[in-house]
Parts: sequence; C-alpha cells; structure tokens
Amino acid sequence: MNPKIMTPRAYLKLEDLFKKINVLHGIAALLRWDAAVMMPKGSSFIRGDQLAVIDAEIHSLINSKRLSFLLDRAEAHAGDLDDWQGANLVIMRRLWVRARALPKRLITALNRATVTADQRWREAKESNNFKRLAPALEKVVNLTREKAEILSLKMGVTPYEALLDEYDPYRRSEEVETLFKELHHLLPPMIYRVIERQADWSPPPAHLFIPKVRQQHLARKIMKTMGFPFNNGRLDESPHPFTEGPPGDIRMTTCYDPNDIMKGLMGVLHETGHALYDFGLPHQWIHQPVGRDMGMTIHESQALLMEMVVGRTRGFFIFAAPLISRILGVSGETWSAESLYRQATRVKRSLIRMDADELTYLEHVSVRFQMEKEIFTGHLKVRQIPEAWNELMKAGLGISPQNDAEGCLQDSHWPHGYFGYFSTYALGLLTAAQLYQSALQACPEIPREIQTGNFRPLVDWLTDNIYSWGARKRFTELLKNATGRGLSIDPFKSYLEAKYLTDTC
Amino acid sequence: MNPKIMTPRAYLKLEDLFKKINVLHGIAALLRWDAAVMMPKGSSFIRGDQLAVIDAEIHSLINSKRLSFLLDRAEAHAGDLDDWQGANLVIMRRLWVRARALPKRLITALNRATVTADQRWREAKESNNFKRLAPALEKVVNLTREKAEILSLKMGVTPYEALLDEYDPYRRSEEVETLFKELHHLLPPMIYRVIERQADWSPPPAHLFIPKVRQQHLARKIMKTMGFPFNNGRLDESPHPFTEGPPGDIRMTTCYDPNDIMKGLMGVLHETGHALYDFGLPHQWIHQPVGRDMGMTIHESQALLMEMVVGRTRGFFIFAAPLISRILGVSGETWSAESLYRQATRVKRSLIRMDADELTYLEHVSVRFQMEKEIFTGHLKVRQIPEAWNELMKAGLGISPQNDAEGCLQDSHWPHGYFGYFSTYALGLLTAAQLYQSALQACPEIPREIQTGNFRPLVDWLTDNIYSWGARKRFTELLKNATGRGLSIDPFKSYLEAKYLTDTC
Repeated sequence: MNPKIMTPRAYLKLEDLFKKINVLHGIAALLRWDAAVMMPKGSSFIRGDQLAVIDAEIHSLINSKRLSFLLDRAEAHAGDLDDWQGANLVIMRRLWVRARALPKRLITALNRATVTADQRWREAKESNNFKRLAPALEKVVNLTREKAEILSLKMGVTPYEALLDEYDPYRRSEEVETLFKELHHLLPPMIYRVIERQADWSPPPAHLFIPKVRQQHLARKIMKTMGFPFNNGRLDESPHPFTEGPPGDIRMTTCYDPNDIMKGLMGVLHETGHALYDFGLPHQWIHQPVGRDMGMTIHESQALLMEMVVGRTRGFFIFAAPLISRILGVSGETWSAESLYRQATRVKRSLIRMDADELTYLEHVSVRFQMEKEIFTGHLKVRQIPEAWNELMKAGLGISPQNDAEGCLQDSHWPHGYFGYFSTYALGLLTAAQLYQSALQACPEIPREIQTGNFRPLVDWLTDNIYSWGARKRFTELLKNATGRGLSIDPFKSYLEAKYLTDTC
Repeated sequence: MNPKIMTPRAYLKLEDLFKKINVLHGIAALLRWDAAVMMPKGSSFIRGDQLAVIDAEIHSLINSKRLSFLLDRAEAHAGDLDDWQGANLVIMRRLWVRARALPKRLITALNRATVTADQRWREAKESNNFKRLAPALEKVVNLTREKAEILSLKMGVTPYEALLDEYDPYRRSEEVETLFKELHHLLPPMIYRVIERQADWSPPPAHLFIPKVRQQHLARKIMKTMGFPFNNGRLDESPHPFTEGPPGDIRMTTCYDPNDIMKGLMGVLHETGHALYDFGLPHQWIHQPVGRDMGMTIHESQALLMEMVVGRTRGFFIFAAPLISRILGVSGETWSAESLYRQATRVKRSLIRMDADELTYLEHVSVRFQMEKEIFTGHLKVRQIPEAWNELMKAGLGISPQNDAEGCLQDSHWPHGYFGYFSTYALGLLTAAQLYQSALQACPEIPREIQTGNFRPLVDWLTDNIYSWGARKRFTELLKNATGRGLSIDPFKSYLEAKYLTDTC
C-alpha cells in the first residue's frame, strides 16, 4: 500500500500552511540580519514596519480557524501518519497552543515594554545606573509573569516551566535545579584547585594588534575546514555575534578584537557550531517544524561543543597554530600550539560572562538562574537586583563588580524578556561534554583527525546522532539515543578533571 | 470643519490596506537586492520561495473582496476627499483593475515562461545562437499578447497601449509614434554632422587600469555631493546596476570597469538620478500609491537628466576633474575637465545600447520600439527578429552586428516580458532635456553652482517641480506644470544643437 495515499489530507494541508509560516520566518531572519549588518542607520523605521507586517502575518496564520480545524482533523487520523509526520503534528499543536493562549493585548504590551526596556538598558549601561532601567524592567517582569501564568494553566506546568519551555521544550525546573545544585558542589572547589595549579603557567602571550581583515581571513579558513558551506552561507561582522536564516542560506556574524584574537576565534567557533547544526537538519523536512532544531539547549550544546570543548583542546591548536602564524603573520613561542592551548584554557575569576572560561562560565550562568527563580516567585524585587547580583557573585566566584555596568547590566536577556533562557547555556555545556564523551567512544580517532584539520568524523557523528534528527525526538530521548543515558553531570566532571587537573586529554 | 472628520472611513481603511501592500513591496525589494548583491550562490531556491510568498500575499490583498468593497464605498464618497486623497483613490482603482483583469492561470503561465526564457536567453547569448531562445520567447510573446488583449478590453485602450500603460500610465501609442517619427528626422543627419565635426578631436584618454575600490570611493564622494543621504541608503556592486527599496532605505548598485572609469561613473550618475527622485517623493504619502513615482518615463528622465544631460556638461567635469585626479591618483592633460568632457560627449556609431552616447542612444531605442509594434501586430514573427534587427540597425545607424550576441540578444527586456518599456528611455531623455531647459530658465545659476559642487539649486527645482508631486498628477499635467508645455522634441533639439554643433552650452 502506498503510504502517501493514506496520509490524511488535513495533515498535508497543515504542511502547506507551516511551510508558508516557515518561509515567513526565513524572511524575518533576513530582515534582522540585514538590520544588524547592512542597513543604513537611519532606516530602522522602515525595518520596524516590515518586521511588524511579517510577525502579524505569522501570528494570524497560526491563529486562524482553518489551522485549528485542520489540527483537529489531522489528529483524528493521527494513526495513519508515520513517525516523522506524527512528531510534526505534535509540534504544530504545541505551537498553536502557545500562540492561542496569549491575548493579543498582552503580546502587544510585551513587545512595547521590551522595546522600551531595551532602550533604557542601553542608557543605564552607558550611564552605569540601574535605576534608569528598573521601572521599564519591572513592567517587562510583570507582563512576563502574566504570560507565564496564562501559559502555565494551558500547558499544565509551573509558570517558570512555561517560560523554560519556550526555549527548551518539555524541560522541568526540578531537573534544572538538581543539575545546578550538583554544579554548585563541583565547581567552586575545582575552580580553586585549577587556579592554584595554573599559577606557575607563564603569562599569556602579549596581545598583538592584528587587523580585522586578517582575523576574518583566518575565521573563513577555519569555518571552511570545519565544514561551513560558503555556497549556502556568509560570514559578516556585527557587535553581537549571531547565526540567522534557514538552512540553505545561513547568515553568521562575529566580532573581532584587534588586540585579542581569542575573542574573535572563540566567537567564530561558537557560531559555527550553531551553523553546522542548522545545515545538518534533515533536508526533506526543511520547511516543517519537525525539521527545525530541538530547542536552545541542544543548539547551545552544539555551539559550546565547538567553542569550549573542541576549540580548547591541544589537538585543535595543533591544527590551528600553523594557520594562525601564516594568516596573521605572527611567529615565536608565544604563538605555538601549546602556548595558545594554555591561553584558551586559563581559568580566572572575572566579571563578564561572555569573556569567561569554561569553568567559571557556569558560575556566571548559575547566578542568573538563581535570581530568575526568585524574581518569578516574587521573593526578589526588581529594585533589589543589583544587591542580590553582587552577593551571589561574591558567593559563587569570590568577586563582585565595582559597578552595575560590569554587574547586572551586562546582559540584554532580561530587558528583552528572555526569562528562562540562561539555563540552556549551562545545560548546553553539560550536554556538549556528554556528547563529546560518546563521540570519542564511538570514534576514538576524532582528536587525531582534528589535529590534521579533518573535522569530518566528529561532524558525521553529530549529524547521525543530533543534526539529522531535527525536532523528531524530545531532548532526553535524543540524548539517550546518542549517549545511552539522560543528562548527567558526570561526563562533564570527568572531562574537566582530565582536562584541568590530571592533564590526561 | 475638520477635514479629517469628513474623510470617509472606507477610504482610510484602503490606506491601511495599501500601506501593508507597500510594506510588502519594500520587503520584496530587499529580497531582490540581497539576491543580487549579498546572497550566497547556492541559496536561490530559498529566495525563490520567499519572493513567491510575498508576491502571493500582495496579489491576494489587491484581489480581496474586502478591497473591492472598500473601493466602491470610498468612490461613492469621493467628493469628501482632498486632491491627494482623490488622486490616491484613482490609482488604487487602477491597480485593482489591472490585478483583477488577469486570470491567475495567465499570471502563473507568464511567470513560468519568463523564468524559462531568461535561462534560454543567457544560453543563447553565450552560445551566440538566437534559435536557442526563439521557442521560449515565442511563448512569452503569445502570453503577453493574450495579457494585452484582456487588459485592452478592461481599460478601453489598444492592446499595445495596455502594455505601455504598465510602465507609463495613460500613455497613448500615437504620441509615442509621433515623437519617434520626429526623432527619426532629427537624429540621423545630426549624428552625421556631429561625427564629422568631432573628427579632428584628439583621441580619448588612454584607458588606465583603475582599481574598483578607488572608483567606488569616487562614486561615493560624487553621490554625497549630489545629495544622496548615506544615512538612508547604500551603494554596492552588481553586474546590472539598479536602484531598489522604499525611500528611507534605498539600495543602489553599480558596476565598474577597471579599464574605463566612464562606465562606472555614468552608471552611478544614472542610478543617483533614480535614487534622488525616490528620496524626494512626498514623505507624508510614503506608504500610499500616490506617494510613489509617476511611472518609468519620469523615473528614467531623472536618471538620464543626471547621466546624459548634467553628467556630460563642462561644468560637471570642472567639478569632477579635481576629485578624479585626487581619488584615482591620475594626472596630466588626459584627465583635465575639457578632455573628460570631450570623452563623455564623443558620438560614435556602436552596437551596444548600454554603452551608447546621448545621440545614438535614441536610435538604439527606436529600433526596439519599431520591432515591438510589429511583433504585437503579428507582422513580425519571433524567428524573424535577428534579420529585422540587423536591417533596422543598418537603416538607423549605418552599422549592423556581426552576430546576435551584439545584436538582438543584448537586452534582457523581451525574455523577461517587459514589452512596452523601451519607449520610456526615449521619452525619458526628451523629458530630461525639456525639464533642464526650464530649470535653467528659472535658476540660471545652476551650471555655475554645479561647477563648484553645489547640486542644491538643481535638486531643489526638481523637488519642487517633480519629486514632491509623487504620482499626484498625470505625466502631461506634471510636465506642463513644470515647463509650461506638453512633451515636445524641440527642447531636446535645441539642447543637442547647442551642445554638439554650436558648442554654446
């Protein structure tokens, strides 16, 4: 029997509708990329109108009676669908539930509040004055709390879980809390030991001035080697690095510090990790929700696997050091593979999350996660954020900022309303370590091949185990399939010990 | 009485609908610009889907029952509208008539036929073999004829006029034919005399190799001086120069020939003329049809006024020569203002329209216009095009091409289905000469000011008389308002005589 004949017509019509929605998302991505990279400064009023029209169109398609009717019909015949189609239908329903749940009034109010809060945040950061942001942020918090409560009822989860779910489908906050607690036992003593152990390391290489154009040349070369297909993607510059666009036309950006090549290099590895995931998503499902990524924990895991794990191995620098010498025109012991490796793995207590090393990074994330929960239970008022921030930094990392600009004003997530996002960085790094451990068990030649510039074995393993599954499996099922177990702190722990304490990897 | 209170609600709802349509047009323009300038080569399948979704959305908005209903209601209360609103409503109805007239089947068939014909045209041009294009072009011609006939009935004009009307609203073919006839009397003897007169001119300057990056620097400097606001626009490179995007975010492109700076320079002047018109359109009507351009004859007139008229004056080169020397790093008599002026005004019989000088240009256009009419009356079959082309070139310019690549395969207009477009180049140049004559009468200081790099008096006059009117007046009314008369060949004739024969301008 031809399975096509059996596929319910309602389901196929849903695929048409979601293809259109997906194409509109691709257009919005290009509009955002252009705004960040190409658009003349004075043209943002034009872009605002354009994005609003696309957003409204997407919203009205998802909220249409027709879509609701088709979902009911397709679900009534769900037994006739194959596994991919069935998973696709489940995600369609989830998207519909979220979109339907929120009243238009609330969506508009949140949009407006985040635009204002973003503006205030920039001013507050520049003038180093949290009070300028506080009233606008309070509005965002209140509206987000309202959103969380509505979604909580519709989805049968706690309000904070309803927020997590937006970035990390099906995530339970209990699991996140347990992992953070375990991290809290692991990290502070380990950071102490590693810093002590690294005390006699020679100072990091002098920061030479390297023009951006050379760093860009290096970035392109490394991306190409890792498998970034420039026939279907670009690399450009923007103040905040990002990766946008449908697989088939990926727009990646990074930013360079002329006095510190590590910043640009690590940014490129991070975004290339995101991009390779997108490129590897299942082609035959390119326009359907089931063919997109499995949420931000998996997405960040792919980015952090390249940036933090692979990008900070000796093997990577054995491959990269000759390229760095040749393309940047530098030489000497300071630029040797071993010296670059030590620079990339040096652990130090610092104030800025974006510049943190692999170990202290999770402490930064933990501070934000603890605060978010307190904010949403109402135990922490917005005006108390600076004080709480400084205390938690002191407790977790032993240092606290001199001012709010290098403290609670450093990230844009909260003013933008992205509550529930930070934990995906932490879970993403744990996932990355767990995946890498399994990849090495399956293909022990991976590190040796990376030394020679061959990323194929690693990328092939990731394609088979992660990329090509799209959103077909939920997080835990996907991870179990790839590594034989659910998310655990153990692989991360043994990875850190081997890398930072016993120097056995 | 507050006029706002009187404005019929139906009309205001139409404004909302057309704002949305206009924003969608702006998005499509950015998608096309990106495809030509930024997009990776392998991503065109993604872009095709995106443009199709936007086109379908625009089409369904214009074809909606709601719009039709609102038009009827607004027209019933047209007496309550002010002049701008009334003109806006008339254009809305025209857009609706055109969109409604054509069956979806025909639009889809034409789209498909032109995509195929474009592909065949590229192959035919490369292999210098018109036969490869002929069957695909025949399909385009037949479908365009069908389109012209349907529109002819709905609009009460001849079929060929229905085609003209798409680019040049309300244009009558009788008027176009009369003007071409007059040109045919004027040009051949004048070309003969000018070539004879220029025979003893020293040869044009040696074609030095000038890197693109320097030519781009020069282009930006000249655009800025002319008034191009880089805060709301960009200049980039593409194989075929164009200007796209809503006023407020104009994307202009050009292409440079490293061995001939005149090509890039004249291309930049041409596109800057288009761009300044767009920037000068009435701001308060930016999203409405009445706030857009008045069709392609006026648009091309603004481009040709800058490229052919102003850009080929002694005054322009007195301004530009020092810039050219400084930015391109060239010097000597060859690069003096007088020498550059002579190069820009040298008349010669050549085969390629795009590279033609001001005089022979119109003969090129005339060849195409004569053929189009014959094709649409059915007197000229597609397979006879090469022969007819060569004969008409011989008759008009005294030369004929060695092969079709430099003959009837040089332009992409016909394979793309743009029948009725060519005449706007000719009428545009006549219009440019007529406008410039009136501008000089009103502000005799214009040439002197341009010598010093001050384009303000000219651009101000154009703003008052053309740009700021948008599509508020029809062509003839607009031109009478600006110059005191309808379109005539006389200003062009006396302009050519003064410039090319008596050297008195």
